Amino acid sequence: MLLLHNIGLLATCRADGGQGEINGIRDAAMVWDEGRILWTGPESELPANHATAERRDARGRLVIPGLVDCHTHLAFAGWRADEFARRIAGESYLHIARSGGGILSTVRATRDAAEDALMSRAAGFLEQMTALGVTTVECKSGYGLDRETELRLLGVYRALARRGPARIVATYLGAHVVPPEYRDRRRAYVELVLSLIPEIAAAGLARCCDVFVEEAAFSTDEAHEVLSTAMAAGLLAKLHADQLSDGGGAALAAAIGAISADHLEHASAAGIAAMAAAGTVAVSLPLATLYLAQRPMPARAFIEADVPVAVATDFNPGSAPSWHLPLALTLACTLQRMTPAEALKGATLYAARALGLDQRIGSLEPGKAADFAVIDAPDVNHWLYHFRPNACVRTVIGGRTVWRAA
Amino acid sequence: MLLLHNIGLLATCRADGGQGEINGIRDAAMVWDEGRILWTGPESELPANHATAERRDARGRLVIPGLVDCHTHLAFAGWRADEFARRIAGESYLHIARSGGGILSTVRATRDAAEDALMSRAAGFLEQMTALGVTTVECKSGYGLDRETELRLLGVYRALARRGPARIVATYLGAHVVPPEYRDRRRAYVELVLSLIPEIAAAGLARCCDVFVEEAAFSTDEAHEVLSTAMAAGLLAKLHADQLSDGGGAALAAAIGAISADHLEHASAAGIAAMAAAGTVAVSLPLATLYLAQRPMPARAFIEADVPVAVATDFNPGSAPSWHLPLALTLACTLQRMTPAEALKGATLYAARALGLDQRIGSLEPGKAADFAVIDAPDVNHWLYHFRPNACVRTVIGGRTVWRAA
Repeated sequence: MLLLHNIGLLATCRADGGQGEINGIRDAAMVWDEGRILWTGPESELPANHATAERRDARGRLVIPGLVDCHTHLAFAGWRADEFARRIAGESYLHIARSGGGILSTVRATRDAAEDALMSRAAGFLEQMTALGVTTVECKSGYGLDRETELRLLGVYRALARRGPARIVATYLGAHVVPPEYRDRRRAYVELVLSLIPEIAAAGLARCCDVFVEEAAFSTDEAHEVLSTAMAAGLLAKLHADQLSDGGGAALAAAIGAISADHLEHASAAGIAAMAAAGTVAVSLPLATLYLAQRPMPARAFIEADVPVAVATDFNPGSAPSWHLPLALTLACTLQRMTPAEALKGATLYAARALGLDQRIGSLEPGKAADFAVIDAPDVNHWLYHFRPNACVRTVIGGRTVWRAA
Repeated sequence: MLLLHNIGLLATCRADGGQGEINGIRDAAMVWDEGRILWTGPESELPANHATAERRDARGRLVIPGLVDCHTHLAFAGWRADEFARRIAGESYLHIARSGGGILSTVRATRDAAEDALMSRAAGFLEQMTALGVTTVECKSGYGLDRETELRLLGVYRALARRGPARIVATYLGAHVVPPEYRDRRRAYVELVLSLIPEIAAAGLARCCDVFVEEAAFSTDEAHEVLSTAMAAGLLAKLHADQLSDGGGAALAAAIGAISADHLEHASAAGIAAMAAAGTVAVSLPLATLYLAQRPMPARAFIEADVPVAVATDFNPGSAPSWHLPLALTLACTLQRMTPAEALKGATLYAARALGLDQRIGSLEPGKAADFAVIDAPDVNHWLYHFRPNACVRTVIGGRTVWRAA
């Protein structure tokens, strides 16, 4: 049994109170055993039966639930740094994609990459994310777009999940874009995507299935077909929705019972209302907003409609080439006008909810996993305001310290 | 004599070619001795007389001039994290300032702080900045606003300069805002500011003098008087200009021969043309743009008019509470539409020019100081696109390694 005491502020991020309520406890302590939290509360109220636990001193710092990055494209080969300069010079994301750049250039590189190479690179990213306080990472396929490479990517995620310490949630994103060899027969590609779903579900290779709904990717009808099939096979549904234009993605996510709709920079009022009624999580991706110089996702409209807003990195080699989730949180504050407390809840409990895992992770309360980070700041406002390379001094997953500052 | 070889790309940042030309050398080497650069060029052309120098291997990485942060308010007491949340909730920067927050709350805390406390805190910031590849830091007073505390702040900067290893350039910013005790007699405060200039100049306590020209701070007439006095005393003139509105700051900077005008989010076309004619450096501060959710400084208009655009952090506890200069560079790319090469030149040669030091630092060429950083990236596009907590693996000042990655 372990006890973390002298916690300046324990941001429990329990559910009650909504987006801006982190249910913080000042001068707190937390007890865990066998990887599960047993007790949290003011240190002055520590029950006698926990007083003998092995003690660790938080030195008055902020303690938060382990951060959940609920939207990444973690495994890929190559980079696309030159497209960054081309976009700055005025080329559009869609124009670069149509000229053979964009997602398809990553697909070419990824198809050529061996599983070992993909694996060691993704493991390197994960190690650095963990040092920032990230304890769970959703990882999408979608840079294979053929049977073999999609399964290779999901195999990488399975291997990373087994290796630990970060928790991995794999998502099948066969419907990312139509690959070039299917350009004139997109129906055949949709059928390939569909055909892989039962196999992936049966092998337990993915928890979620995602579709990129966009003019240059898939229609809402195609997304409906893919996600219905996925849900019938027991997968949770997600959508890349309304990123570059209002394509009805938010409304579709609500209609089919998706667990989340992601991006949503151009979501309509009707889409927001539908998501509120359905309980769909809105995943905001402010790094993509910054890198693509887009208008921000209307976080305040979602929050006012009582839609839970998660915040994630969207880490990928094109539109969001950074896995720095705390930077995404500071950007959620500055670009999306979310308060630091709202942003934190978005990268913990609501991010866990966007993965269907909010009963197990995402908040610090008895019964949940002892996944947390110790942050060198007195409170959440200070942490996300005073941006530093890394303010995390200790990361704990399942009760075990997996990283600490030198 | 030392030799860095196997440099994948040496971004010399020599002057010729303008903002976007970093004058890179592929597969390069660099030789220095006694803190000065002796030779740079392709490794294949290394002169025989340098071949015996002690060798260090750059492992194919990018090498850049040491970064110059040419606009910071480094020494202060306290923080203002709660104002960050208030601004997100909709309060304006000026409203917070008028209600006793803003700069004046930092002034209160700084007046109460001992020189030792200010010193050790600023030294801690500097150490972390150096780890990012920053080798020179401009540091403003302006949180004292009385004789004693302004001199204390400049004394802290003198002590930091003597202590090293970072190079420090001190700037007297007595004309930051009018302190509360002078609210009804602003002329007396301007006279206090003026009276300190000869003393500061004679003691060598500052290289530059800066004035915050803004409706809530000082008028262009007052700035003209302060800066003329400063220039007559041998100081270089700088202005905080056109940040919150077009107050004619850019035009004033050009008219009086200021070395730089800084902020410039609202600079007019006439102001830009005047700065071009006068050769004034435009210092952009994209972190302040982000934190204040402002419109970006029109960097492209400045560059098209052949005004050199520098990029700095503006590090301060209110509008830019981060000393992360590489983040400011990535933001210069994404918010201000500067290419990575343009941003790099803005944080090296042009930042040095904004301090009147571009003959000594800011580029990697024979005769200049051996101040440089080794970056874990193949080129400048990749460095500023793939944002990481810290991509710098080694920082060298005056030929001496002052930081290296573990």
